[in-house]
Amino acid sequence: MIRVPELIRRKREGEELGSEEIFELILAHARDEIPDYQLAAFLMAVLFRGLSRAETAALTDAMVASGATVDLTGLGRPAVDKHSTGGVGDKTSIALGPVVAACGAPFAKMSGRGLGHTGGTLDKLEAIPGFTVTLARSEFVSQVSDIGVAIVGQTPDLVPADARLYALRDVTATVESTSLIAASIMSKKIAAGASTILLDVKVGAGAFMRTVENARELAETMLDLGTRAGRSVACALTTMEQPLGRAVGNALEIREVIDTLSGEGPTDLIELVLSCAAHLLAMSGLAASVEEGRERALAAVSSGEALRLYETWIARQGGDPSPDVLPEAPVRRLVAAPAGGYVASLDALAIGEASVRLGAGRLAKDDPIDHATGIVCLRKHGDPVELGEPLAEVHARDKSAAEEAQRAVACAYRLQDDRPAPQPLTLQVLSG
Amino acid sequence: MIRVPELIRRKREGEELGSEEIFELILAHARDEIPDYQLAAFLMAVLFRGLSRAETAALTDAMVASGATVDLTGLGRPAVDKHSTGGVGDKTSIALGPVVAACGAPFAKMSGRGLGHTGGTLDKLEAIPGFTVTLARSEFVSQVSDIGVAIVGQTPDLVPADARLYALRDVTATVESTSLIAASIMSKKIAAGASTILLDVKVGAGAFMRTVENARELAETMLDLGTRAGRSVACALTTMEQPLGRAVGNALEIREVIDTLSGEGPTDLIELVLSCAAHLLAMSGLAASVEEGRERALAAVSSGEALRLYETWIARQGGDPSPDVLPEAPVRRLVAAPAGGYVASLDALAIGEASVRLGAGRLAKDDPIDHATGIVCLRKHGDPVELGEPLAEVHARDKSAAEEAQRAVACAYRLQDDRPAPQPLTLQVLSG
Repeated sequence: MIRVPELIRRKREGEELGSEEIFELILAHARDEIPDYQLAAFLMAVLFRGLSRAETAALTDAMVASGATVDLTGLGRPAVDKHSTGGVGDKTSIALGPVVAACGAPFAKMSGRGLGHTGGTLDKLEAIPGFTVTLARSEFVSQVSDIGVAIVGQTPDLVPADARLYALRDVTATVESTSLIAASIMSKKIAAGASTILLDVKVGAGAFMRTVENARELAETMLDLGTRAGRSVACALTTMEQPLGRAVGNALEIREVIDTLSGEGPTDLIELVLSCAAHLLAMSGLAASVEEGRERALAAVSSGEALRLYETWIARQGGDPSPDVLPEAPVRRLVAAPAGGYVASLDALAIGEASVRLGAGRLAKDDPIDHATGIVCLRKHGDPVELGEPLAEVHARDKSAAEEAQRAVACAYRLQDDRPAPQPLTLQVLSG
Repeated sequence: MIRVPELIRRKREGEELGSEEIFELILAHARDEIPDYQLAAFLMAVLFRGLSRAETAALTDAMVASGATVDLTGLGRPAVDKHSTGGVGDKTSIALGPVVAACGAPFAKMSGRGLGHTGGTLDKLEAIPGFTVTLARSEFVSQVSDIGVAIVGQTPDLVPADARLYALRDVTATVESTSLIAASIMSKKIAAGASTILLDVKVGAGAFMRTVENARELAETMLDLGTRAGRSVACALTTMEQPLGRAVGNALEIREVIDTLSGEGPTDLIELVLSCAAHLLAMSGLAASVEEGRERALAAVSSGEALRLYETWIARQGGDPSPDVLPEAPVRRLVAAPAGGYVASLDALAIGEASVRLGAGRLAKDDPIDHATGIVCLRKHGDPVELGEPLAEVHARDKSAAEEAQRAVACAYRLQDDRPAPQPLTLQVLSG
């Protein structure tokens, strides 16, 4: 048996621990053989001293080994998965799934819920009447095999050590470690079975990573973990200064996904969906190059195939794919421009927080979600606007919530006289 | 209610916390309102970031406030106390008590047990047949009032927060923080009621503090805590490179105390007892200067008053003060000098560890103690020795333990041809 106080002390003093030691520590904790207080002290030492790549890999391996894993090899084709570190208005995966599946790549994603100012893919999907995110592992695999796409909640038998560790980190101020974040994300991706994984690390005011340096460190750590586990991995660093697309809020975002799959979505969202699809198709050998992947993805949208596959998928998980059945908020209010000019910036964090206060997100883990509410940003970075024209539309449960959101949204916009330089969406794509 | 994860995060980021925040955190933990895992993460952040003097004072105040305190004001005279951070062969307090009491200063000490290579005052006293260290608070006060001296175990109602905190630190590798060590020591001294406190911080190979810098930092922190609590405090930094006195082991050390009080003890022990007594008498106004205090202390030994008071004290706590009743080990073996020369060094840590292996100390908290065993160092630093003459005598339970100890003790001695420069005993005395 490992001597835990000795292990904690060595990490405290900056020593690199052996892979077996880390592996045993995490699994022993998952089996309740090591008390939370020892792991909490260890985690705080990790916050100060960091983990080497080998230590991070051992941590990831231990978390994967703590539970069941999904076997997708029976599909006979490499399954693909995509993960975003979280942003405001990020509904990319929901549009991406049907696009790549229409191009022949099975899309198999296990996803999480939103917390704080960022939304969660499962919450968005649950805005669709009848849609269920709760599938058994075998149903998940069958669905991917049958129709080529599934997005479900992570089954509780996958990486239970991560759930325990995360709950402990949350209450001991030990969340903000690149190694711990990378291991948490990658253990879940590895356990979920896809052989080809695209990671989208968001950078900026509306993301968890505020600087490109931090984002790149996280990206490189995750690439290393994926490669060590024998997966094909790429990682895009994309900006999250303003919301992605126009819609922020669950039903509003599903409507925008349908628009996008109909070829009528907002430019930045279409661009990100096509770019992600292009990389995944090239990585899984379904396109000879990223450029060819992009053309194939565009064709799947133009032909209506991606939209038809979306409808098949939503119906298979019990939902009604028609946009007409999505819930609508009773109160809608426009936010008028206080002056003419150009949108110099639109604060993603402020919009995300205003959306949470409208009921579209949650501050605590078990808060209920109002699927109908949210904000539609009618003007985005670089757009011109005249005095009094609408900047955004607020969708609220009642008048007073709408008014509070109107004020918050107005403050989130900064206008200026000159047209600002365009912001790039994708900063860099790293591959393993 | 304080938000604990926020508090941990602020300490992790190096912020100084408010005194009320620290006070509430520690008391809430003592009341079981904050789980161990949050305190463990906090303590590890403290190991990296340290605590300011104000934070350390708040921690100390909280620990004192967590339980009962001893009221010695009824004595009508300032009571004195002395604490050593622990060394090998350190029986100073047991000789010091009767000396200062004979000079009119009530000596009221609550003490602890030994762990690792250092001995504990209570363990030494329990080598005396019949002696009890378990007194109620009221009995402790009455005894000091009646005869002027008492050394007892700390009652469990005093500073319970320290006991909880220490147990947690022990298993989470968060022991080695100067602030936490200082707060732990001083909360117990403050709660035990004496108004005049002499601290002896041991420095060197056989002490917890290995460097003078660390020892001075601890000393200054403790002085500050004592002064803030309205106590008169001084702190001596004394060397612990070799054992103090000759005897290491419980009954052997009691015998050496009796010798010392009879005017026949080893030079370094006599010197330290007189020096401690001198400072305490000067601090409590019973001597006009340290020099006068020293003369009074010497007179109390020469007149036999100190020895008579020792006998009264031991009898009052149920013990037989005669050296003849002390337990003796069945096997005694001399350690012969492998060459002639001078003792260049005598490793206190090695002697302490050899003594523990003979059964005189404990490695784990609940290990039993063999009061009869130990080591007598017949030659000390600077002493001349001829080839084959005894360096030390081992007192063991059996032959094989004796032989193991003989080898260890032989290795602890380093001899050289030239007489080495004398080592100072007291490096510095700091006062608040």
